[in-house]
Amino acid sequence: MTDHSSNQMWGGRFAAGPDAIMEAINASIGFDQRMAAQDIAGSRAHAAMLAATGVISDSDAQAIREGLLTVLSEIQGGEFQFSTALEDIHMNVEARLKEVIGEPAGRLHTGRSRNDQVATDFKLWVRDQLDAAETGLLALIRALLAQAEAGAGWVMPGFTHLQTAQPVTWGHHMMAYVEMFGRDLSRVRDARARMNESPLGAAALAGTSFPIDRDMTAQALGFDRPAANSLDAVSDRDFALEFLSTASICAVHLSRFAEELVIWSSAQFRFVTLSDRFSTGSSIMPQKKNPDAAELIRAKVGRIFGANTALMMVMKGLPLAYSKDMQEDKEQVFDAADNWMLALAAMEGMVKDMTANRNSLAAAAGSGFSTATDLADWLVRVLGLPFRDAHHVTGSLVAMAENKGCDLPDLTLTDMQSVHSGITEDVFSVLTVENSVNSRQSYGGTAPDQVRAQIKRWKALV
Amino acid sequence: MTDHSSNQMWGGRFAAGPDAIMEAINASIGFDQRMAAQDIAGSRAHAAMLAATGVISDSDAQAIREGLLTVLSEIQGGEFQFSTALEDIHMNVEARLKEVIGEPAGRLHTGRSRNDQVATDFKLWVRDQLDAAETGLLALIRALLAQAEAGAGWVMPGFTHLQTAQPVTWGHHMMAYVEMFGRDLSRVRDARARMNESPLGAAALAGTSFPIDRDMTAQALGFDRPAANSLDAVSDRDFALEFLSTASICAVHLSRFAEELVIWSSAQFRFVTLSDRFSTGSSIMPQKKNPDAAELIRAKVGRIFGANTALMMVMKGLPLAYSKDMQEDKEQVFDAADNWMLALAAMEGMVKDMTANRNSLAAAAGSGFSTATDLADWLVRVLGLPFRDAHHVTGSLVAMAENKGCDLPDLTLTDMQSVHSGITEDVFSVLTVENSVNSRQSYGGTAPDQVRAQIKRWKALV
Amino acid sequence: MTDHSSNQMWGGRFAAGPDAIMEAINASIGFDQRMAAQDIAGSRAHAAMLAATGVISDSDAQAIREGLLTVLSEIQGGEFQFSTALEDIHMNVEARLKEVIGEPAGRLHTGRSRNDQVATDFKLWVRDQLDAAETGLLALIRALLAQAEAGAGWVMPGFTHLQTAQPVTWGHHMMAYVEMFGRDLSRVRDARARMNESPLGAAALAGTSFPIDRDMTAQALGFDRPAANSLDAVSDRDFALEFLSTASICAVHLSRFAEELVIWSSAQFRFVTLSDRFSTGSSIMPQKKNPDAAELIRAKVGRIFGANTALMMVMKGLPLAYSKDMQEDKEQVFDAADNWMLALAAMEGMVKDMTANRNSLAAAAGSGFSTATDLADWLVRVLGLPFRDAHHVTGSLVAMAENKGCDLPDLTLTDMQSVHSGITEDVFSVLTVENSVNSRQSYGGTAPDQVRAQIKRWKALV
Amino acid sequence: MTDHSSNQMWGGRFAAGPDAIMEAINASIGFDQRMAAQDIAGSRAHAAMLAATGVISDSDAQAIREGLLTVLSEIQGGEFQFSTALEDIHMNVEARLKEVIGEPAGRLHTGRSRNDQVATDFKLWVRDQLDAAETGLLALIRALLAQAEAGAGWVMPGFTHLQTAQPVTWGHHMMAYVEMFGRDLSRVRDARARMNESPLGAAALAGTSFPIDRDMTAQALGFDRPAANSLDAVSDRDFALEFLSTASICAVHLSRFAEELVIWSSAQFRFVTLSDRFSTGSSIMPQKKNPDAAELIRAKVGRIFGANTALMMVMKGLPLAYSKDMQEDKEQVFDAADNWMLALAAMEGMVKDMTANRNSLAAAAGSGFSTATDLADWLVRVLGLPFRDAHHVTGSLVAMAENKGCDLPDLTLTDMQSVHSGITEDVFSVLTVENSVNSRQSYGGTAPDQVRAQIKRWKALV
Repeated sequence: MTDHSSNQMWGGRFAAGPDAIMEAINASIGFDQRMAAQDIAGSRAHAAMLAATGVISDSDAQAIREGLLTVLSEIQGGEFQFSTALEDIHMNVEARLKEVIGEPAGRLHTGRSRNDQVATDFKLWVRDQLDAAETGLLALIRALLAQAEAGAGWVMPGFTHLQTAQPVTWGHHMMAYVEMFGRDLSRVRDARARMNESPLGAAALAGTSFPIDRDMTAQALGFDRPAANSLDAVSDRDFALEFLSTASICAVHLSRFAEELVIWSSAQFRFVTLSDRFSTGSSIMPQKKNPDAAELIRAKVGRIFGANTALMMVMKGLPLAYSKDMQEDKEQVFDAADNWMLALAAMEGMVKDMTANRNSLAAAAGSGFSTATDLADWLVRVLGLPFRDAHHVTGSLVAMAENKGCDLPDLTLTDMQSVHSGITEDVFSVLTVENSVNSRQSYGGTAPDQVRAQIKRWKALV
Repeated sequence: MTDHSSNQMWGGRFAAGPDAIMEAINASIGFDQRMAAQDIAGSRAHAAMLAATGVISDSDAQAIREGLLTVLSEIQGGEFQFSTALEDIHMNVEARLKEVIGEPAGRLHTGRSRNDQVATDFKLWVRDQLDAAETGLLALIRALLAQAEAGAGWVMPGFTHLQTAQPVTWGHHMMAYVEMFGRDLSRVRDARARMNESPLGAAALAGTSFPIDRDMTAQALGFDRPAANSLDAVSDRDFALEFLSTASICAVHLSRFAEELVIWSSAQFRFVTLSDRFSTGSSIMPQKKNPDAAELIRAKVGRIFGANTALMMVMKGLPLAYSKDMQEDKEQVFDAADNWMLALAAMEGMVKDMTANRNSLAAAAGSGFSTATDLADWLVRVLGLPFRDAHHVTGSLVAMAENKGCDLPDLTLTDMQSVHSGITEDVFSVLTVENSVNSRQSYGGTAPDQVRAQIKRWKALV
Repeated sequence: MTDHSSNQMWGGRFAAGPDAIMEAINASIGFDQRMAAQDIAGSRAHAAMLAATGVISDSDAQAIREGLLTVLSEIQGGEFQFSTALEDIHMNVEARLKEVIGEPAGRLHTGRSRNDQVATDFKLWVRDQLDAAETGLLALIRALLAQAEAGAGWVMPGFTHLQTAQPVTWGHHMMAYVEMFGRDLSRVRDARARMNESPLGAAALAGTSFPIDRDMTAQALGFDRPAANSLDAVSDRDFALEFLSTASICAVHLSRFAEELVIWSSAQFRFVTLSDRFSTGSSIMPQKKNPDAAELIRAKVGRIFGANTALMMVMKGLPLAYSKDMQEDKEQVFDAADNWMLALAAMEGMVKDMTANRNSLAAAAGSGFSTATDLADWLVRVLGLPFRDAHHVTGSLVAMAENKGCDLPDLTLTDMQSVHSGITEDVFSVLTVENSVNSRQSYGGTAPDQVRAQIKRWKALV
Repeated sequence: MTDHSSNQMWGGRFAAGPDAIMEAINASIGFDQRMAAQDIAGSRAHAAMLAATGVISDSDAQAIREGLLTVLSEIQGGEFQFSTALEDIHMNVEARLKEVIGEPAGRLHTGRSRNDQVATDFKLWVRDQLDAAETGLLALIRALLAQAEAGAGWVMPGFTHLQTAQPVTWGHHMMAYVEMFGRDLSRVRDARARMNESPLGAAALAGTSFPIDRDMTAQALGFDRPAANSLDAVSDRDFALEFLSTASICAVHLSRFAEELVIWSSAQFRFVTLSDRFSTGSSIMPQKKNPDAAELIRAKVGRIFGANTALMMVMKGLPLAYSKDMQEDKEQVFDAADNWMLALAAMEGMVKDMTANRNSLAAAAGSGFSTATDLADWLVRVLGLPFRDAHHVTGSLVAMAENKGCDLPDLTLTDMQSVHSGITEDVFSVLTVENSVNSRQSYGGTAPDQVRAQIKRWKALV
């Protein structure tokens, strides 16, 4: 089998010789056909502009623009025969256009080049994905807001080092992710604004001597303005790199939440129950629910940042203006975009469907002396102890409770006064989990009122 | 020697046993002392706020704030003894403060935690670096503008695939980098605006029951507002990731320019002469100038993106809120920041000092039938040939010139007419390199007027 | 268009709801069908073993083994209908097997699990690719040896910092790459030997209570032995990571050679002429040859190391034994393997076809005072000067030659003696490029004899 | 503060002007002084060889070799004054040697160059680290073997998807990591063998005309042979890349184990108790133990693979032979090596010190119907059901038990027979956790006998 498979590659496809190898490495039509709609939109805008500036006749432009719609409908209808010999989407479309409308097709490429054409197509494609990411992020944020609203006051352990630290609320935890995805949204919008300049008309690299109107094509394609340097316009792939780094940071957030969901779904935690739709079972253990979707989402950060790494290395050290290396940009961005959108949708679905196990959360919140900080703060606030001294007293009381096998609220006042004589009955008011979270009234704190205020702020935004 | 060195690690330092190992892996004071100024600024703001809100007395706050200035001056004066046993900069400063002012020092940590403290310190440090990057980018852009202005009309080859494609101007090429670094500047500013929220007051993770005023500390430290979720505030490292990805994209631009400078400095190109200050010589070949600075700048993208990769992996899949993994954030950002600033400064210096070899550039610009596109465009514009036909005619004329061993302008009108009878004397007007670049009048094109317009636009901006 | 495309993702495919999203993120049949032959080979070996150990009957085993061949031939013939509902290649094959042979199909999965099955399939697939890489590397090395042999004595500049340093020979330069690809070959072989342990029989993670014979299946599948820990066997992806890192280092070598070919093909260098088959032309500039294949090969290191990064991040921090995250392993390895093999084949083709421009190489070799080191060495060897002093004298002579606008051999003996009186006529014997390279007789040096000795050594090896 | 800090960089250090910037970016003495011992060992070997081959006199060689020992002892004693103006360790040592022994120092550099010198030094340094890694891995494996031996028969849950799948033993789980670190050991040894070729004598890039004996210096420095191509010898950094990728894969293993330790230390799992030495406490919650060392180890994979990424990008596309970019290799390798060794030592320490909570493990092992697979296997083995049918029956029984709120062994025979009439009393023999693990007798399975056999095999190896 070994030999077979290696021969398949070397003795089969490549045995056809250098021409087959060159075609395999050089042709991009296998993937850049995904930009067909963008390519045709760009060409239609270009043709209209060429007519408006008198470079081609109105009737030629009309024929081109209509012919391109025909080609687009063939592609969208699945009837188009893509040809590897024609290398890329641009040549495939133009060749078919010539079959459809004849001679005027030859005038379409006036005042442009494949260099500015592919940059335009790709920018339009990436811009669409930024819009899709915005849609996906908004939907995910809304799903989190719904969870937060339902459980604004449900207590759960707040962890540091995966050790119980202080009680927080479910709503507060959900809202932490709203902040993260909110920053992602902000990055998406900044990236879109920054990249929205049209390369079209930069031609091969130097601009053109035809009296083209780059503002007109920019406007027709929804760009804010034409790119200001033709060399840069054809050699720039910042928009792809920024797309990938923005996606990567968002994927980190998704991986963190996914990790929590995997841990929370374990038999040991039981903090959440994921829906059957986003889990898989075992034919043999019907009670078992594997958090497959969460695990796959957790993994996507690898794939997306892998694409980021790939394109960074491709672009490193490339002299201006266009080098063929840059053809490697698309597959990385396509794959990252597909997986980003998929991960956002799957996370949104999981969040909508999941059930917080309120009782398990509450039970865990109250264990582990989770209100020790509240006790220390009481000592500072009420008795005026310096912070470090209050820590010391609290540590002694926790140790005492641990020795007695009870929790802090179970100590008697006498117990407490044996450690610090100034302690009064009032201390018990801060030792319950509910009082603890209610007391965290600082801005952005976990007190349910604070959480609800943030939910309200976000609902007005998204 | 082998044994010696490995023993040094295993038999020496680690032979001291587990405690030495734990100290080596756990303590951060070796690197986080770089945040001393930020730590003290944060503590001073916190103390002032605690007094304003009545949590501590004015006199305690006064003592703390003055004591902290004493500590800062000890650190800046190099007199401070950092202690590894005290683990980090926060504990080192606080312990010294206690020595200086006594008991009130114990009240400083009220209503905060090391978790929000380190997030605040680190954000302040990163924000400083974003400001430094802005300064560095502006200086580099100005240096490029000066080069562009000097040579707005100097012709040189425009390359694709490192093959001569069409003539461009030196100024146009320089301005391509101005666009790139201009986008970097825009990313730096967006990153700064997005990260400028104060974590201080988030405390360990849940906020606090002390009546603190987070707006007050935010304002005192130059933040736009307090961060809105305390869990997120202590677990967020987006600002570090965005800093690193912004630096990485900028480093790609630096690597591309550096690659060009290395190639342009070769004996085969001789497009530029780098100054002695940014080259190294050979004691044996005094005429030789190695472009060391350019090569080192080219390499920095690896280091900076390596740091980006490192922190991405560290943050992947971390549950909320604080995990000790996050202590690995600082060294990556410190190293990337240092090297980014250094690379910007070195590139600025090289650009200021370098000399374009105008004659070599011009000679190269005119070779390789670089005005073939101009000929084709003339055929379209003047004779009305479809673009694809014009390409065919031009190809035949280039082949004829190549056979005759001459360049396109050296063909006679009769030669030309033998390929296409409609060609007239007027065609020669587009065959010189100067006319070629002058004709590229499309917006953002290489025509010197266009280049000068862009220089003017940028000079108004930076 | 924007809306359309984003709607396509969100409003179309995902509008079908959570089930469609889960299927999209969860099913692997879209890619793991590439392992069909490996899956069937593994199942056939497993069935034979189950019969040999009496777990199933001989007739069931026979039916299963023949049925699997039928399924394989359907897949290879393109007649197989893959079903996404059946998720993966394992379930697709087993379901079809049941249709073909009925009830005995249900006995095939005895004593194994999808966890060890997928690990086995994937290992077999990766092993095939290591074999293919060996084939590809050997072919590339042979092509380099042919180039080295043809030009063992042709002089060319040896560069440091892309500046002429000392003359070397074409053969020597080619042999440098033979060493690099030879190390890649060694890494490929080590990786293959290390990974060649069979996971089959590890079952879900704990092994099995059936009396299976793991040695027998290991041997049948060409493994050296069964993996020794069942938990590790199903959770290990080292073989994939080592494949990717091995491929990545090889891709660095390919990128370095590709960079040289791009630079050497420039009009300024003209060191090599690439064949038309591995270049693309311009319809408008028929003399222009773009080194597209070299540029694409240069870029592949990004793609391959991007896959390495992706899988590293996926595996980071995964608890034992199997997590669904690991399903992300295959596409990364598939894509890296395809592109590695393609890059090797394309490089082999380019090397075979390319022509070294011997005259350009020789002319460049003699410029830039490239024999200055030879002069210094002569001063040390013949006159007994300390090395540092010899450097100083040489520097003065180079400066003198540069002032006179001549090269070192053009200085007169009188000129030379004016700098150091001990210099004799004999010095001129070391100042020619040919004598320079001939004199580098140290082992591994550039002297043609040394180069030919290395060619001979390598020809015996590959 | 902001302004201050940024000014410090731009207005302070760099205000000194281009020379300060060039020194900052160019000098390597700040880090390459770590290779002092290697540099001196290489020079001593070189000097001895130069004397043996008659290139220098025996007395000069003697003076050089003794002088170098003096310099070494100054460096090791901390008395050496490193000079940035002298750029690197090579020049610092040579300059000091000249001060110590005078004129003969000038003969040391005969027949070599800084290019082969730095390659030699760096290889020796990396080789030392490979030896240190071997030592560290062996120690860690031994610590794991001790844990495995102690708990070869302790039951615990085997997880997939962090869900209980089947019972395994503590020893089996420990041995999974022994296999992983065993593969790391194998990779370390392969890497060491492959890299052990001496660059010394490759000189600048072309070899030398001096009659040097490269075999002699290779042998003196413990290399297996001299590198066979001088161009490759000075431009090769494969050994550094392979070191980093080997370290990275090992760091993945460390991160996986660290993740398990963090999860196992949580209050919800309580599978292990880490020692105080590798945890940190809280002054306020004395019972709390944060697994800091485990978290930091988990993070190291980011740092180490970040270094791998950095050097991959640096090397991408570098033309032969030496480019200054390669100076960026050392800091990456130094930092990765330090952190790898530290992580190995910390993990070894943690493993030695940690306590498995046998009761918690056993309790968790028996929950979640963890013997369902055993039941299904019994149905296949004893009743002859096809595997898929056995799964179905088992699923029904698990569902029945879940409904009754009991575990599988608590069902009555009548219950069982109501689902499948053929079930007999014998079935209960496979439903206990102990019987389950004892039954997994397949090679490499979790049965304690199998585990002990593997422990024995490994103890003979390490």
